Amino acid sequence: MKLTSKTLDIANRGVLLNRADARNTGVVDGDRLRVMNHANGRAVSAHVDLTDVIIEPGTIGLYAPIHCSLEVKDGDEVEIWEAPKPASLELIKKKMNKRKLSRDEVRTIVNDIVADNLSLPELSAYVTANYINGMDMDEVEHLTVAMVETGSKITFSTRPIVDKHSIGGVPGNKISLLIVPIIAASGLKIPKTSSRAITGAAGTADLMEVLAPVEFPAEEVQTMTEKVGGVIVWGGSTNIAPADDQIIVVEYPFKIDARGQMLASVMAKKFAVGANLVVIDIPVGRTTKIHDVAEGRKLAREFIELGERLKMRVECAITFGDAPVGHTIGPALEVKEALAVLEGSTEPQSLIQKSLSLAGIAFEMAGKAQQGQGYALAEEILTSGKALAKFKQIIEVQGGDPSVTAATIPLGAHTHVVNAPQSGYVVELNNPSLVSLARLAGAPQDHGAGLELHAKPGERVGKGQPIFTIYADRAWRLKLAIEEGRRLMPVVVEGMLLDRVPSEHYLG
Amino acid sequence: MKLTSKTLDIANRGVLLNRADARNTGVVDGDRLRVMNHANGRAVSAHVDLTDVIIEPGTIGLYAPIHCSLEVKDGDEVEIWEAPKPASLELIKKKMNKRKLSRDEVRTIVNDIVADNLSLPELSAYVTANYINGMDMDEVEHLTVAMVETGSKITFSTRPIVDKHSIGGVPGNKISLLIVPIIAASGLKIPKTSSRAITGAAGTADLMEVLAPVEFPAEEVQTMTEKVGGVIVWGGSTNIAPADDQIIVVEYPFKIDARGQMLASVMAKKFAVGANLVVIDIPVGRTTKIHDVAEGRKLAREFIELGERLKMRVECAITFGDAPVGHTIGPALEVKEALAVLEGSTEPQSLIQKSLSLAGIAFEMAGKAQQGQGYALAEEILTSGKALAKFKQIIEVQGGDPSVTAATIPLGAHTHVVNAPQSGYVVELNNPSLVSLARLAGAPQDHGAGLELHAKPGERVGKGQPIFTIYADRAWRLKLAIEEGRRLMPVVVEGMLLDRVPSEHYLG
Repeated sequence: MKLTSKTLDIANRGVLLNRADARNTGVVDGDRLRVMNHANGRAVSAHVDLTDVIIEPGTIGLYAPIHCSLEVKDGDEVEIWEAPKPASLELIKKKMNKRKLSRDEVRTIVNDIVADNLSLPELSAYVTANYINGMDMDEVEHLTVAMVETGSKITFSTRPIVDKHSIGGVPGNKISLLIVPIIAASGLKIPKTSSRAITGAAGTADLMEVLAPVEFPAEEVQTMTEKVGGVIVWGGSTNIAPADDQIIVVEYPFKIDARGQMLASVMAKKFAVGANLVVIDIPVGRTTKIHDVAEGRKLAREFIELGERLKMRVECAITFGDAPVGHTIGPALEVKEALAVLEGSTEPQSLIQKSLSLAGIAFEMAGKAQQGQGYALAEEILTSGKALAKFKQIIEVQGGDPSVTAATIPLGAHTHVVNAPQSGYVVELNNPSLVSLARLAGAPQDHGAGLELHAKPGERVGKGQPIFTIYADRAWRLKLAIEEGRRLMPVVVEGMLLDRVPSEHYLG
Repeated sequence: MKLTSKTLDIANRGVLLNRADARNTGVVDGDRLRVMNHANGRAVSAHVDLTDVIIEPGTIGLYAPIHCSLEVKDGDEVEIWEAPKPASLELIKKKMNKRKLSRDEVRTIVNDIVADNLSLPELSAYVTANYINGMDMDEVEHLTVAMVETGSKITFSTRPIVDKHSIGGVPGNKISLLIVPIIAASGLKIPKTSSRAITGAAGTADLMEVLAPVEFPAEEVQTMTEKVGGVIVWGGSTNIAPADDQIIVVEYPFKIDARGQMLASVMAKKFAVGANLVVIDIPVGRTTKIHDVAEGRKLAREFIELGERLKMRVECAITFGDAPVGHTIGPALEVKEALAVLEGSTEPQSLIQKSLSLAGIAFEMAGKAQQGQGYALAEEILTSGKALAKFKQIIEVQGGDPSVTAATIPLGAHTHVVNAPQSGYVVELNNPSLVSLARLAGAPQDHGAGLELHAKPGERVGKGQPIFTIYADRAWRLKLAIEEGRRLMPVVVEGMLLDRVPSEHYLG
């Protein structure tokens, strides 16, 4: 059926059809159609909403994303037909039926994901089936390669290319702001793509955005890296492994963290930027993705095996994940803390040591330092001021202001200090509660929002002594965070003797 | 956040928000919000689309279904907040992790489905997890009961209440049009709710709609049944087991037919109408849901066990499913064939025998006939004209014209006869191809569209002899069906000797 197009400014991959036209073509509510622009042959799949009023018969309302994909002008003719059943549906059902998928089958599914041929419920079934039935390493490799092939890629003319990834779950993990300039300052290349926070208080991309733009296509990531040795950009705008971005959307409500999916997701992004030396940070803790060291080692071996299949060298660091890294959580607060370290601050040690350790591993892998000497090299680059100088080049090449200093970073104007309700020891920093509180205060959208911690686990605080400060850009956000903060108990202060166990228990 | 409402005639459970308001409240694309009408306290969940243009800051666009649910007037104030994470998500994840759900947990999920607190991808994950990990009979019972409790119910003051269900997969299965009036004519009550075709050419509700309205709330189903003994209505408008309707939507793309889900779906609908004697038709064939008799018997035992748990008596009939029932496929054609039988036609035997057998089982269960005598009683009611008289009462009580006769049913005006390409035997009627062809011709939306078969499997036809006729309400639909019909080969004519097997094979 041919229809006249009309753009509707609605951000949704859909089209709006008059009910009479729908009836004539047998389209029902919620169906998916193929829509083609006859002028240029571009075609996309879109879900259908129906109306009696907004769009008249003979016309089709194209929501903004569909309008953009088709490159259509208002009044142009488009053609619609029933979206063919994507080939992936049979393959997803095969996976539901606990059967292994071949390289070609995985590629078919990933192609359909990227071409938006699968609806969200269909994609959800695929992700759920992978989660329940698992993927073996062949399937993980196929998925990784397919995700790389369906997106943009970077090819550098020189090697090595270094990359680094933290699998997440620790608040305040601003280490990339130190690691990337340290590595680039050594002469190695590190084109770091990173994510925005989905459930967290600040992803690395959210942090860097405080200092400079972070949205660049893959070609510019390459040019900038060639120029200054490193960048810190948002992966979502590079079109690198775009299938992964769509998969994450359906994983999100369940916090599904299917092992194979995670391996493929991380490694596809590293592979696509041309990295051949990769350091993976695996934080282990009660509230991180990995709960004990044995589990962390197992994951590390899987990363290394997948790396070998892709001809990449991978090393993993099992790190402490039971407390935030450094003292700050939230975009501007974290950037301020990291910048201060680059400027010479010798605190906080948790941040400095973790960053230098991971940079040191990369130096040893790249042959920049002898085994066991990487940490020292990283420390030298940091304390000499070379890392700061490099970071300013990175900020500048991305379009930010290189004259920025830790002192000039604006924090949220509305603050509230939370004091210890009693004297005692800080026995717990609850990561999920800290993140919730920072988010209530406005992080990551409000750059100035977040938390600064004044006391660390094991430290003794007196009654009324400050234990943390909440920052917010907006007054009502601060109010919200204060109210909820009482319930969340992100910092627990108790007597050191937590629970008295009667001796009878031991006597039995 | 409080906003002024504005209705938008778009059929979709969503709202449209200005991008500025979204940014202020931290809402991102694709989020789900709770929306409340302050005037009456009604609140619903809705997904969010964003716009810069169509809705201005301070206003919210309510798509038609949300507008209806809230009973809001244009310009009324509504309040929005982030939809709380439904409790079901953790429970669905538990099911993904292969753990069994309790009665309360299943109820929580079904409540969230009915309250529309789950997005379609979330619901898809639930259905996929149930499919892969299966449900034991406890879970099936819990699901059945929860689906009943979250919908409308009918309670009759007298017993028994009879019901009947075909698990589907056989085209032309118009038997309910005979069984319901035969049973009602005996004095028993049979409040039959039925479905519309989703992938088929005509559901029982599509058939009945040729003769009378089929959309009634549960109370009217009860009143009408009390009055004339039986009805044939569309289940979708009764609000009986509404969770099931939503589950079917996400099962559809994969043709998932999770055993436990199917048991719960069927039995919830029977339980909710108050049925205590239920006959289940299990067609067995290469292209039906059940492929051999052993599998059919296993399913039958499961239906019977679930019935016992719900205090319902269930009997199952394993029936022949390799060819259509009768000679017609498509709404008007099937109704005409069934009406002709009620009017005294002694053909087609496949339709008459199947209908009388199933009605006979119900008579024996209800004690209306001795064991082995049910078929004869059903036959007597049919041939005496009592069933026809009862069917006219049913048509009338539902608001149709009781003076209808088989001869007056209008069929599609555009027809095309397909003749045998060669002399030979009809060796196959391909059910899926027959259904596809009827749908291409316009069934079930176009009531006059469908197929009439002139030759049955095993019958010899001469070259050029008619083998089937395609009917369509619209000329272009007929053209489409004729073109595709060549490819689909729904009726295969061959020499009786299909393949000559060399004797060596036997000699080995």
